Amino acid sequence: MADLSTTLPLSRDSVIRAHKVVEQHVHRTPVVTNQTLSRLASTPRTADELAGTRWAGRVPAQPRLRLWFKCENMQRIGAFKVRGAFYALSRLVDEPGWVQGGGKERGVVTHSSGNHAQALALAARENGIKAHIVMPEISVKNKIAATQGYGANIIFSGSTSVEREGAADKVIAETGARLVPPYDHPDIMLGQGTLGLELQDQVREAISQGGVKDAYEGAGKSGGGGLDAIIAPCGGGGMLSGVALSCEGTGIRVFGSEPSFEGADDGKRGYEAGERVTAVTSLTVADGLRTPVGEFPWGVIYERKLVSGMYSVTEEEILQAMRLVYERLKLVVEPSSCVPLAAALFDEDFRSMVEREAGEDGWDLGIVFSGGNVAVDALGKLFG
Amino acid sequence: MADLSTTLPLSRDSVIRAHKVVEQHVHRTPVVTNQTLSRLASTPRTADELAGTRWAGRVPAQPRLRLWFKCENMQRIGAFKVRGAFYALSRLVDEPGWVQGGGKERGVVTHSSGNHAQALALAARENGIKAHIVMPEISVKNKIAATQGYGANIIFSGSTSVEREGAADKVIAETGARLVPPYDHPDIMLGQGTLGLELQDQVREAISQGGVKDAYEGAGKSGGGGLDAIIAPCGGGGMLSGVALSCEGTGIRVFGSEPSFEGADDGKRGYEAGERVTAVTSLTVADGLRTPVGEFPWGVIYERKLVSGMYSVTEEEILQAMRLVYERLKLVVEPSSCVPLAAALFDEDFRSMVEREAGEDGWDLGIVFSGGNVAVDALGKLFG
Repeated sequence: MADLSTTLPLSRDSVIRAHKVVEQHVHRTPVVTNQTLSRLASTPRTADELAGTRWAGRVPAQPRLRLWFKCENMQRIGAFKVRGAFYALSRLVDEPGWVQGGGKERGVVTHSSGNHAQALALAARENGIKAHIVMPEISVKNKIAATQGYGANIIFSGSTSVEREGAADKVIAETGARLVPPYDHPDIMLGQGTLGLELQDQVREAISQGGVKDAYEGAGKSGGGGLDAIIAPCGGGGMLSGVALSCEGTGIRVFGSEPSFEGADDGKRGYEAGERVTAVTSLTVADGLRTPVGEFPWGVIYERKLVSGMYSVTEEEILQAMRLVYERLKLVVEPSSCVPLAAALFDEDFRSMVEREAGEDGWDLGIVFSGGNVAVDALGKLFG
Repeated sequence: MADLSTTLPLSRDSVIRAHKVVEQHVHRTPVVTNQTLSRLASTPRTADELAGTRWAGRVPAQPRLRLWFKCENMQRIGAFKVRGAFYALSRLVDEPGWVQGGGKERGVVTHSSGNHAQALALAARENGIKAHIVMPEISVKNKIAATQGYGANIIFSGSTSVEREGAADKVIAETGARLVPPYDHPDIMLGQGTLGLELQDQVREAISQGGVKDAYEGAGKSGGGGLDAIIAPCGGGGMLSGVALSCEGTGIRVFGSEPSFEGADDGKRGYEAGERVTAVTSLTVADGLRTPVGEFPWGVIYERKLVSGMYSVTEEEILQAMRLVYERLKLVVEPSSCVPLAAALFDEDFRSMVEREAGEDGWDLGIVFSGGNVAVDALGKLFG
């Protein structure tokens, strides 16, 4: 990772600068809409639906929501993580003396079994940089194969964080490789935030081309200016904080969403208690969101209050949203991607807040589909 | 259905005229590309891969293919069938005396448990026409619910074709409703063919905007003029024949693809024998392709030779292609949609033909994803 003293300030302008770098390497992924889902989000839930949930007996909220889905599941390597990886490596290459000092040969290292591993491997290959990826021995075979396919050097380790960090430290000591963490670094946050800029532009373009406004009867009327709000998944918070930075000063509100299972809603709990939760041991189905919020993201999300609120959903709600995405949008997404939609459809706290804040006109709400890396065999298990 | 004496000639011009009607009601579905799949299609299969298949011992073909996927899985009701339904109903409304004679109230009728039922129900509702849909009692519940959701009158019947046709005849006798068959009518063929026009335009636009040509190393070099060929699934042949009409006189070759399981390759067998096969009883996983080619489509496909060849693939090849679509393209498609891709990737007859005909430059090949209506529970069964 580039030295912290060289990072740009955490601001919307810096996200715009990061985008000029990142857009040369990543897809401008599509933004899609769906009448059925917007109508569903704009229909009050019935008392029957609320019975047996934590909202039992409450008067159902009546929000009006026009949903816009940013499809990072169709991004390179199947997830937004390439944005941060490409930006972080460009900063490293720009760091005075790093290339000249043999940095590309010494390489970069990370410990991850997920999307960040593949993202870093791809970005390193395209920058001519050696990549060392520490993966737990128990990692899914096709994730190992995919990471190797990008030419990375795989180092196997035990699966506890101590074992993985130990293996990464060993690589650093032996090779002089630079650590690229998955989320807790300003460069990563600025890189991930570039999806927020695109989403803002794409919705504004789509609305200005007309047609869309009238397509959502019962879902209110777009003001025509673009998005009113964005809701994104929150794991380590690198992407959520980056998206929040991309909206700074625009008037677009940003919300985070997490699974509630086994305490994976650390971000929400920390936000409400005023103190960051630093450890999570949840096995939520949303496996990309099992990590606590990092220190740098926390500064943006909570301390600077660039995120207006955090919401959490149950495992059942995540799978129900996932079913709708498959059957209605015809898109393959991983469970973590479905958390924000689950909040928009099922979380009465979120929905009553929208009803109150947005009123008759409702909101144009951006929803981030963070990734689509799920094997078909896993689908069989989830829905079998 | 409009009287046959009123149908337009089966020509590209008629497809263009149909498109002017249809485009007001349907989505211009996206066309997507994927480097990994184009590279895979352009890589010779290994002797190991061919061992144990019907190509064992053959020298693997070396085609160069740049693949373009037309995403009718993202069409309204999740399949291309709405194109034919909207066009057929517009022709009916234009038929002299039909509306004035109370046609809209008498309505339309079809027997189908699949995509055509939902397509006709939707098109009828938007045209203010009563729709009667005969469905087998054993139909999947959510298909019944979806069709009812479009306001159609559902009539349950036994599941043999005799029972279903009998039920439809009874509706006609009692109500004076007009039958709208799923594929064997010129209006349906012209309506479905409109997707071929869009695919041609969208690929030409994408190539002229540049960038795409260089994205496929090893897959040859686009001539820049757009598509060289299209391959589509073939069930009753309404869509395949319509796409063939949309390409008439353009130089773009059109191919059909079918499952080989239990004789579902009736189109291929008929094409090679010179005589239409009129009955099929296959239970192929590609459930949209279990029907024999209809008489009108046959005239275009075989008699006028607007289709240059028919290819067939195994159940395993269909599922393997489906896995790639989910894991690489991140799109939800039904098994029938995966038959053309399976042919492009695995059928050595198709691949050696491309190698021979296309040479060094290779082909820009359009692939029709016909629909995406598969329940997540069914995915569990397919891949569990």
